[in-house]
Amino acid sequence: MYDAVIVGAGILGLATAYHIKELRPNDRILVIDKLKGPGQGNTAKSAAMFRTFFSSRTNLLLAKTSIEFYEYVEKKLGYDLGMRWTGYLFLITEEEYKRNKPVLQTMKNMGLEYKIYDADYLAKTLNINVKVSQDEEAQMMGLVDIDYGLFIPRAGCIDVDSLVKFYEQELRKKNVEIKCGVEAKELIVEPKEPLELPGEPYPWQEASVTGVRTNIGDIKAKKVILATGAWTPLLLDKIGIDCHIKAKKRQIFSIKADKESLKKLLYTKGFNPENCMPFLILPKPKIWIKPALEEKAIWIGLADEFPREFKVEDDPQPEMNFYEYGLYPVIIKYLPQFKDARPYSSWAGLYAINTIDEQPIIFETHGVLVVSGASGSGIMKADAIGRIAAALYAGMEYAELSGGERIKTTTFSIEKRETEPERFVL
Amino acid sequence: MYDAVIVGAGILGLATAYHIKELRPNDRILVIDKLKGPGQGNTAKSAAMFRTFFSSRTNLLLAKTSIEFYEYVEKKLGYDLGMRWTGYLFLITEEEYKRNKPVLQTMKNMGLEYKIYDADYLAKTLNINVKVSQDEEAQMMGLVDIDYGLFIPRAGCIDVDSLVKFYEQELRKKNVEIKCGVEAKELIVEPKEPLELPGEPYPWQEASVTGVRTNIGDIKAKKVILATGAWTPLLLDKIGIDCHIKAKKRQIFSIKADKESLKKLLYTKGFNPENCMPFLILPKPKIWIKPALEEKAIWIGLADEFPREFKVEDDPQPEMNFYEYGLYPVIIKYLPQFKDARPYSSWAGLYAINTIDEQPIIFETHGVLVVSGASGSGIMKADAIGRIAAALYAGMEYAELSGGERIKTTTFSIEKRETEPERFVL
Repeated sequence: MYDAVIVGAGILGLATAYHIKELRPNDRILVIDKLKGPGQGNTAKSAAMFRTFFSSRTNLLLAKTSIEFYEYVEKKLGYDLGMRWTGYLFLITEEEYKRNKPVLQTMKNMGLEYKIYDADYLAKTLNINVKVSQDEEAQMMGLVDIDYGLFIPRAGCIDVDSLVKFYEQELRKKNVEIKCGVEAKELIVEPKEPLELPGEPYPWQEASVTGVRTNIGDIKAKKVILATGAWTPLLLDKIGIDCHIKAKKRQIFSIKADKESLKKLLYTKGFNPENCMPFLILPKPKIWIKPALEEKAIWIGLADEFPREFKVEDDPQPEMNFYEYGLYPVIIKYLPQFKDARPYSSWAGLYAINTIDEQPIIFETHGVLVVSGASGSGIMKADAIGRIAAALYAGMEYAELSGGERIKTTTFSIEKRETEPERFVL
Repeated sequence: MYDAVIVGAGILGLATAYHIKELRPNDRILVIDKLKGPGQGNTAKSAAMFRTFFSSRTNLLLAKTSIEFYEYVEKKLGYDLGMRWTGYLFLITEEEYKRNKPVLQTMKNMGLEYKIYDADYLAKTLNINVKVSQDEEAQMMGLVDIDYGLFIPRAGCIDVDSLVKFYEQELRKKNVEIKCGVEAKELIVEPKEPLELPGEPYPWQEASVTGVRTNIGDIKAKKVILATGAWTPLLLDKIGIDCHIKAKKRQIFSIKADKESLKKLLYTKGFNPENCMPFLILPKPKIWIKPALEEKAIWIGLADEFPREFKVEDDPQPEMNFYEYGLYPVIIKYLPQFKDARPYSSWAGLYAINTIDEQPIIFETHGVLVVSGASGSGIMKADAIGRIAAALYAGMEYAELSGGERIKTTTFSIEKRETEPERFVL
């Protein structure tokens, strides 16, 4: 009998297991995952970017303390997590700048750093074509001129595989069992006092989740923890619990920076200590462009909304048409360096989007604890999310985040949710 | 080209069509339904109870004005809707009564009527066994003693078929087309300026819903209105819009009142002008028991939650085990009259549960207007919901409800939702 079985060895499941062992070193914890190894699901598909720049107190706390923990892991525990402080550079319009000025001022007062570059500087340093509005095709596509660059230095990327490895190694040291190739088919619900009635529990019986039914048999535990990301609603719908999570496909296209113009872009100096281009975000649609230094490549993606379907799928595929007609025609208007660029690699994963406010979902009901719905920010918030889930598991009212700040364990629940809406939206 | 195509001729689709024609008599409106006639889906499966007794301003307004409209339809328009003022009688514990006292006082101040009966009176008039706690089986089932009856006179039932007929006949008079046997397979999304690109619209294109793809071909309309109840997420998920609605099966079991003891219960005098038993709600689990006078029967049901699954299905079936092990053993403890009673008829439908607050969802986005999620209160709130949806369709800021009271058309939207939580919860 396990104290807890954690379903899902993605980044949230691993972080949760890690922090449970910090709080309850003697508890018997099992982590199961349907894939061949930890972190091979949507965790592995991530763009793996992070920023510590949010207006929402709750968003900021999760990201900031998690990033600080990863820095601690690198500096004090000696793990190389491949953190690179590339910065984020939002390419924005006059209108966007004006609209966000009040919230940016508030954020400055909170101690968050940013810098504004003018269009000329962007054109000069990154060879961005900031004026697209005269171009007939660009007009037809509704593209807008870039007036400013909003640069955020406390931001960058991390190597997800290394982060997964760190957690995995630490969990093995702490005697946490990780069983891969084990798929949770459904949650086991049992009455507290079983009477062997067909189809029990009935409404007059007290009942709760007591385990998971898997391809290798039933696994019982005092607590079942779902860190199942985009798959969560499949398990919870079956027992009538809404987790407010829906799955949406996200795609990444990787372009080799072998052409001289792309190489020049990738290794643009002056923005960050890595001497590379910052993570760029175009104005509209908000295509992002990431320096992927290890592969000498540039990654491209876009979190498209309407009419991109909500759909849980096991093996989501990137769509070449999406690159060719959705991304490429926009990118070359702003960054002619990409002319004729074609992906040498591409993949797709699923965001587990919490449709209430796109902040994580961490709650417990009927014996099951849910930690999911990070809505695409799972990597950058995993440590804090894991701490909160672990504290909730341990029955604590507050979780202590990296650096010592405390947060109520119900902050990201459904019934007592106290998230602060994000007002920095570009 | 229609001004609006309304998908779903259930009660909400019909009421919406009716009120659109009141506001926009010249608009060309088509109502489609996948079944053979209007109101044959979950509308027909309803217990068809109503009450004008809610603490939430929004709940109350919807129910109260809708019921007033139905009374107007009966008295002024001369339709027999089969309204019967049976009243609701909540059988409650001391603890429940104490807990609800403050909210009941508030409701009394709002002009809402109720009456408290003591246990002796209930035992005497309805032959209810109010003391179950000495019974060993009842104890094992966790059943509690009944201390009071909370009676609500402004409540009863309506004949759903008659209500559907009323709307249908009025719609035909107003030249609204109703096409049955037409199933909406998916929503058509098109860019404002089509370029014939494979897979368009792309993220740089403005796009919206322009029609529905059906088994008889594409139907285009200036506005698509989804009154698709429990099926709504199937259509909206495909275009990445979350309506916060999940489907849950609800079952009704009908018992013939042919036995003397049941006949006596059914025709209990003293509670209402119908000279029949009131609609009863047991304390825990909250099984309800309805006088079905037309059939000389008594209906029984229970809106069970955990672990009843969320699932959209076309032909949900009642489960005899649910009656036999879930309802029957509880009922006979309180109402021994039901000893050996077996359903002569039973059926199941789907609630379209809005998992935010169980109040309706009425919003418009990307060219599609959604009116669903009444969470089991669709019949008793249909007129008001239809008025709000119609006003939203007509671009009005406020809807005028029956009786003249106005309410913001965004009150039940997702982004600008202003529902008041229900505090009268038994």
